[in-house]
Amino acid sequence: MKKRLLIVVMSLVLCIGFALSAIAQVKPATLVKQRQAAMTLLGKYFGPLGAMAQDKAPFDAEIVKRNALLLEALAKMPWDGFQEATANEKSEALPSVFKDPAKFKKASEDTQAAIANLVTVSKTGDTPALKTAIGGVGKTCGGCHDNFREKKQ
Amino acid sequence: MKKRLLIVVMSLVLCIGFALSAIAQVKPATLVKQRQAAMTLLGKYFGPLGAMAQDKAPFDAEIVKRNALLLEALAKMPWDGFQEATANEKSEALPSVFKDPAKFKKASEDTQAAIANLVTVSKTGDTPALKTAIGGVGKTCGGCHDNFREKKQ
Repeated sequence: MKKRLLIVVMSLVLCIGFALSAIAQVKPATLVKQRQAAMTLLGKYFGPLGAMAQDKAPFDAEIVKRNALLLEALAKMPWDGFQEATANEKSEALPSVFKDPAKFKKASEDTQAAIANLVTVSKTGDTPALKTAIGGVGKTCGGCHDNFREKKQ
Repeated sequence: MKKRLLIVVMSLVLCIGFALSAIAQVKPATLVKQRQAAMTLLGKYFGPLGAMAQDKAPFDAEIVKRNALLLEALAKMPWDGFQEATANEKSEALPSVFKDPAKFKKASEDTQAAIANLVTVSKTGDTPALKTAIGGVGKTCGGCHDNFREKKQ
């Protein structure tokens, strides 16, 4: 019985080891490239919504609905790229990302929650409510950038 | 009556003009950056599935299911970045993208169809079927890269 247990434990250790080595295989530079790619696309699909909410572009509820769904998928993508191993890579991420991971995690979750809310509201097509929901997303993006991203010159 | 029709036509022309100028506002370099970002993320989420299908990584149906949904969203994102205006930008896109847009469009649609099939199959959790579906996606990626992307040295 003890031998069996040992085999199970050893198998588990091997599996975990394999999983960790699979994660570790992604180079820090690749992690940075991937997380920046996600931010680029969040910008691509949020930009037009921000312009609509601020009356800088004609409001189009269909585009809001489509982009909200794409943003929902994209908002899952950047965070696993902010690994400690990337701390010394060239990027705009401030050291605070790695010094206060709990606060950073909270900020990433706030953004995802605001986007989930936008997806829900986008199904109603209610323009004022949509503008408020878009504003809510913008606030969480900006809040995170203020604390965790280098200020642009 | 004719005057009314004229007003409607003029309004339409203005609207289309506005829409086109809104598209034109995105710089060619930005379009290239955005489409490359989508390709980077398609690679991020397809890579592990390719490894699983080729038995280079342990098969995990839950990861396949999650990644399939992310790939479905990502597969909508690169194509509007391949505008004629980007033909002279530095990138790996071959001139064939702009010389044979119908063939390129077909290739992009094949990829999206293969990913939609993977999403459907991923709900079954059937490993052999999933490996086949992953292979199907890989084939459409490779087919498009063969015809429309510079060969890597």
